[in-house]
Amino acid sequence: MLRYWTAGESHGKTLLAVVDGFPAGLELQTAPIDRDLKLRQGGYGRGGRQRIETDRVEILSGIWKDKSLGSPIALQVINRDYKLERLEDLQRPRPGHGDLTGSIKFLGPIRSVLERASARETAVRVAAGSLAKQLLAAFDIQAVGYVIELGGVAIPPVPGTALEHRELRDNSAIYSLDASRDDEIKALIDEVGKEGDTLGGIVEVRVEGLPFGLGTHAQWDRKLDGRLAQAVMAVQAIKGVEIGLGFEAARRRGSQVHDPIQFDEQQADSPNLGYIRPTNNAGGLEAGMTNGQPLVIRAAKKPISTLAKPLESINMETKEPESAEYERSDVCALSAAAIIVENVVAFEVARALVEKFGNDSIEEMKARWELFQKMARKR
Amino acid sequence: MLRYWTAGESHGKTLLAVVDGFPAGLELQTAPIDRDLKLRQGGYGRGGRQRIETDRVEILSGIWKDKSLGSPIALQVINRDYKLERLEDLQRPRPGHGDLTGSIKFLGPIRSVLERASARETAVRVAAGSLAKQLLAAFDIQAVGYVIELGGVAIPPVPGTALEHRELRDNSAIYSLDASRDDEIKALIDEVGKEGDTLGGIVEVRVEGLPFGLGTHAQWDRKLDGRLAQAVMAVQAIKGVEIGLGFEAARRRGSQVHDPIQFDEQQADSPNLGYIRPTNNAGGLEAGMTNGQPLVIRAAKKPISTLAKPLESINMETKEPESAEYERSDVCALSAAAIIVENVVAFEVARALVEKFGNDSIEEMKARWELFQKMARKR
Amino acid sequence: MLRYWTAGESHGKTLLAVVDGFPAGLELQTAPIDRDLKLRQGGYGRGGRQRIETDRVEILSGIWKDKSLGSPIALQVINRDYKLERLEDLQRPRPGHGDLTGSIKFLGPIRSVLERASARETAVRVAAGSLAKQLLAAFDIQAVGYVIELGGVAIPPVPGTALEHRELRDNSAIYSLDASRDDEIKALIDEVGKEGDTLGGIVEVRVEGLPFGLGTHAQWDRKLDGRLAQAVMAVQAIKGVEIGLGFEAARRRGSQVHDPIQFDEQQADSPNLGYIRPTNNAGGLEAGMTNGQPLVIRAAKKPISTLAKPLESINMETKEPESAEYERSDVCALSAAAIIVENVVAFEVARALVEKFGNDSIEEMKARWELFQKMARKR
Amino acid sequence: MLRYWTAGESHGKTLLAVVDGFPAGLELQTAPIDRDLKLRQGGYGRGGRQRIETDRVEILSGIWKDKSLGSPIALQVINRDYKLERLEDLQRPRPGHGDLTGSIKFLGPIRSVLERASARETAVRVAAGSLAKQLLAAFDIQAVGYVIELGGVAIPPVPGTALEHRELRDNSAIYSLDASRDDEIKALIDEVGKEGDTLGGIVEVRVEGLPFGLGTHAQWDRKLDGRLAQAVMAVQAIKGVEIGLGFEAARRRGSQVHDPIQFDEQQADSPNLGYIRPTNNAGGLEAGMTNGQPLVIRAAKKPISTLAKPLESINMETKEPESAEYERSDVCALSAAAIIVENVVAFEVARALVEKFGNDSIEEMKARWELFQKMARKR
Repeated sequence: MLRYWTAGESHGKTLLAVVDGFPAGLELQTAPIDRDLKLRQGGYGRGGRQRIETDRVEILSGIWKDKSLGSPIALQVINRDYKLERLEDLQRPRPGHGDLTGSIKFLGPIRSVLERASARETAVRVAAGSLAKQLLAAFDIQAVGYVIELGGVAIPPVPGTALEHRELRDNSAIYSLDASRDDEIKALIDEVGKEGDTLGGIVEVRVEGLPFGLGTHAQWDRKLDGRLAQAVMAVQAIKGVEIGLGFEAARRRGSQVHDPIQFDEQQADSPNLGYIRPTNNAGGLEAGMTNGQPLVIRAAKKPISTLAKPLESINMETKEPESAEYERSDVCALSAAAIIVENVVAFEVARALVEKFGNDSIEEMKARWELFQKMARKR
Repeated sequence: MLRYWTAGESHGKTLLAVVDGFPAGLELQTAPIDRDLKLRQGGYGRGGRQRIETDRVEILSGIWKDKSLGSPIALQVINRDYKLERLEDLQRPRPGHGDLTGSIKFLGPIRSVLERASARETAVRVAAGSLAKQLLAAFDIQAVGYVIELGGVAIPPVPGTALEHRELRDNSAIYSLDASRDDEIKALIDEVGKEGDTLGGIVEVRVEGLPFGLGTHAQWDRKLDGRLAQAVMAVQAIKGVEIGLGFEAARRRGSQVHDPIQFDEQQADSPNLGYIRPTNNAGGLEAGMTNGQPLVIRAAKKPISTLAKPLESINMETKEPESAEYERSDVCALSAAAIIVENVVAFEVARALVEKFGNDSIEEMKARWELFQKMARKR
Repeated sequence: MLRYWTAGESHGKTLLAVVDGFPAGLELQTAPIDRDLKLRQGGYGRGGRQRIETDRVEILSGIWKDKSLGSPIALQVINRDYKLERLEDLQRPRPGHGDLTGSIKFLGPIRSVLERASARETAVRVAAGSLAKQLLAAFDIQAVGYVIELGGVAIPPVPGTALEHRELRDNSAIYSLDASRDDEIKALIDEVGKEGDTLGGIVEVRVEGLPFGLGTHAQWDRKLDGRLAQAVMAVQAIKGVEIGLGFEAARRRGSQVHDPIQFDEQQADSPNLGYIRPTNNAGGLEAGMTNGQPLVIRAAKKPISTLAKPLESINMETKEPESAEYERSDVCALSAAAIIVENVVAFEVARALVEKFGNDSIEEMKARWELFQKMARKR
Repeated sequence: MLRYWTAGESHGKTLLAVVDGFPAGLELQTAPIDRDLKLRQGGYGRGGRQRIETDRVEILSGIWKDKSLGSPIALQVINRDYKLERLEDLQRPRPGHGDLTGSIKFLGPIRSVLERASARETAVRVAAGSLAKQLLAAFDIQAVGYVIELGGVAIPPVPGTALEHRELRDNSAIYSLDASRDDEIKALIDEVGKEGDTLGGIVEVRVEGLPFGLGTHAQWDRKLDGRLAQAVMAVQAIKGVEIGLGFEAARRRGSQVHDPIQFDEQQADSPNLGYIRPTNNAGGLEAGMTNGQPLVIRAAKKPISTLAKPLESINMETKEPESAEYERSDVCALSAAAIIVENVVAFEVARALVEKFGNDSIEEMKARWELFQKMARKR
């Protein structure tokens, strides 16, 4: 069982993720995690806070001489902008946030909900997912997320491997796979920003190198498609999730949706065991299990809820109409969402990998991977 | 903690759901569950099996003198079409199903996976959700699901209450809210069926009467949006989930997405405590919590994977190309999906209700509901 | 993840256990489960109900052509003594039972709590554990439970293998390992029964053939000793649990407690990998993990709470002192407890086995067992 | 749902506990936690490390202006003795520890298991439990743990309230309730220490002020007795757990075990609602639920596994017999165990309290407590 929780507030001392059930013996590095943290802070359209601090991870536990111990791994990202104790409460809840609901549910201040509901928390979800990617990498499984639509403007993905996609993504200021569109998109963000408005969009994550049979069909709460959907929808500001063709699958006929099964002896030694598909409309998941094809998942992010030109709200005390409060914010954080969704997806895939191959030691996991491929090929 | 599992195979003896953590003292009825079971079997486009059997629920435990005991409630739907022991294995895996993957993962027969992966299992998920709706009804919370798009043809929902929607839905052969479109849709299904092809579509579920604060923002795995997404995506053949505006939210600007907050003294005694919104683009969920507005969630169902004109596959033994096997199936089961998604959503809402108000007795839950409304109004 | 829940009331229609996460491909038999069910009903000192019905298990799901499918296995034991709907409520709560507490907690009738709190429920816990033992047996792991003390009279266990112990146990009317003591114990039970009183005692369970490393030290809720203690203490009427020397370990010095480590090349191919111990005071568990030695666990069962000569209680309506109610009961059910504890322990061991070796297919589990032994020997 | 995990190694940078699901609005203090941490480090018989460092807790998250936020609370105890990266592996596994097993299970160094299996981890379990006690205190629920037997010498508890017990305990160098016995016990510890040996013993925890109905009878994994047993048995070095009379209950007749039920109108306003018992042999738990009486639980701790005069072991490389390694250790840490068990018990009680009364805000919890008492009295 691989699992994680996070702790920490937006302006609190620190953010933490505790990852429990990570296998022993894997060489861990902080540099790739820091790279992801930096990517999460970047992307065109970000505001002031991202310039205040450069997030860095510290591994507080679960490691000895650069290798995982099999014990819980605590990941810390210090908030350089720690000022929670000096902050006061808000009076006018911001639509789109948890302000109104949270203050009612907890019978308390808006600030207390705001601080934890903030997308700042995703920094350590990225850290946890980035750690999980180091585990996936040991099995040549690669995950990469990128923007495919921003503010209604599509930037279609291009064919390629995960590594190629990552390079393309890292060359784009928007984190799309087509940097030639960057200027157009930046202009859009600038224009919207000037109007005091905000933007959202759609990100896609592809995971390559997956074996057959991660997840299961046998019980609803263990299906991998369900778990992925939970992890992605639970990311701040995400309002839609789709796998493979997604909503488009609902519009086509069956013969145009389901992926024919073919066999290619040449690929029998690869994780797909030689079973290939001319299309991947299923997005790599059938019956809640990986089917040897790349996993493809998309998430719709709503525009940022904090607007420079604030929305209509009320004063909680007087119940009179007033504008919502404004706390320093971004115009568009969709690029960050590409990184966040990549990492929460990676964590769930790693969780499923550990369910299939165990989590005592990386050495044993690898031997079991080989064993499974061998047994499966023999059938 | 309210939770459930199911057991049972498509052609096995029986299907079971065990619901654990249901409060004591609620008068339970089987008739509304049977009604949902029948609805699940209906809708235009269904094939032979639905005519063979009329599902009926039996409550095997957790009830005494028509009231819930607080102990686990086991729900049984007998398979009249029990013949599993006489069935043989398949050789040619059906694209879109778990056939290929499952036989590799479990190193076993295709039949064994097929039987449990089958959508037949949703019968008892409907039963569990229908039971949960009896709990919701005690708090005047109503959930209703309906078709809003079929095979690419939109049938937009109409304004109205949950009860009005239910009546409209029950008058449509398609389970849409507009029976005047039935003939057009039936013709489409007939046409596609003749071509040996299948259809999917989109369903929407609305839940009315919700209080503030079901779910939480505090930890990723307890956010209600994530849990709903899991429950819905884990339904057979669902490939996309969206809440409120969903993917459309990704295309608009923030000022066109977030729902302004207003106060209407007149409604202060209703579950929304007087906090109203001119729009409900958030679909009733902000920061992973219900915000006093109706919950709106949509699911995209892919076309049925079993085609009368089978897809390209291979023979598992010879690895030679052959057509996929065909087992009796439907042309379109989207109407059933409206019922299934309604019920899995209802279960998750009930789970969140129990987390907020407890699950010892319905009497105590109700008193606590009143208490919370009173305390929240006083703030 | 291997897990189970039960459902059903003492006088309800049926008792059910749903076992989720059981590996595919194992040949299952009902006869050994029925044997355990019969043992649970037996032992000297039992009352009328055990004569009314002979429990039999029916496997309702998760099986095809006598082999497990990898899908949930539902086990049913029908209550031949079904009469719940005709039964009325109690007025005078019975000390030692959940009567008083439950009626307050659930603000409801005593009957409703009594029916589910009853030890009758252990029938399906035995069934679930007995199923788990069929999985353990595939790895030559054997569990056996027996009485070692009854009503204060010790009947010390004797050395021997699990199979020898099972034979001895099955030859004793008391389920001890020394049938020569049966007459003495039966006389005691008869005497106490005549006085309208009841008896308890201590049972011990040994599990042989365990590999290294089931359970973990890494997180408190995944330690095997903790999980075993939960499973055993959660059996009706159990008030104490100890592992290995248990409470006696608290009384000795360290040099008289900890088991020296030795190496015997001859046994390098057995599950203990050649690491032997001249003593087994740890009862096979160190740091929450199995250490290659037999697991030894004991449970203290209090005397039956329902006395023919009832205890002092009150009338719930009048609050006046009255004798507690009496429902048909036994004088001593300790022998049954030996079977029950054996089976709940077996289930937890199987759960830990599945965490270590996976639960997709028995074929893969076995190959992984061999692989682990080989890798561990090479260190 | 209130839950916690810990992270951190014995000689690592830091120890952490993340407590998730703690209610909002409770004023939190670190002083009482530090007091418990200091008590954990104390007691006669402790070795060098406890003198090196004085543990202090830091609350890293979940708090604002001294009140809980409802978000996860991260508790940190810095290891002043941080030197993990400089430490080397062991070669000769120490009997009684996880050394041998862990190195085989994880196919890795002994050091890696030792560091996490160490009782050092209990520092943050104490911190988590101590936090939970602040929640319990808001409901006038008090938990206190003390030594009742050390190295075979009984120091019987005395009657009194939790506060009286705490004062007595804090006056004893052994943490018993009878300081007049301290010298005798200290002499025993000195003598055993000189011989290079170690001691264990038995601790008892009493929890006062509990309402009816924490826990449940309805499903095995939610029974409070089972959960308490898990939490206690999962404490390092604990080998036995008993509730109320415990093993002694197994030796008596039913009439001498079960606690008669009486009613005292005078106490109708207290948490026991006026239902009193002349005895408390059940230890406050019947059918897995609190019954309005004080909870009484005992744990048996084995002697410390690290002996100055080391036990027989082997060299893992050569497999030749050698003495086990010795790392700086204590002669007796039973007093610490009294504190540790007190705190893990307190956490489970708080978890059950939150299941019964919710965890949104302390204000709502308190109102619900009053409501329940009122409704229960009316029955």
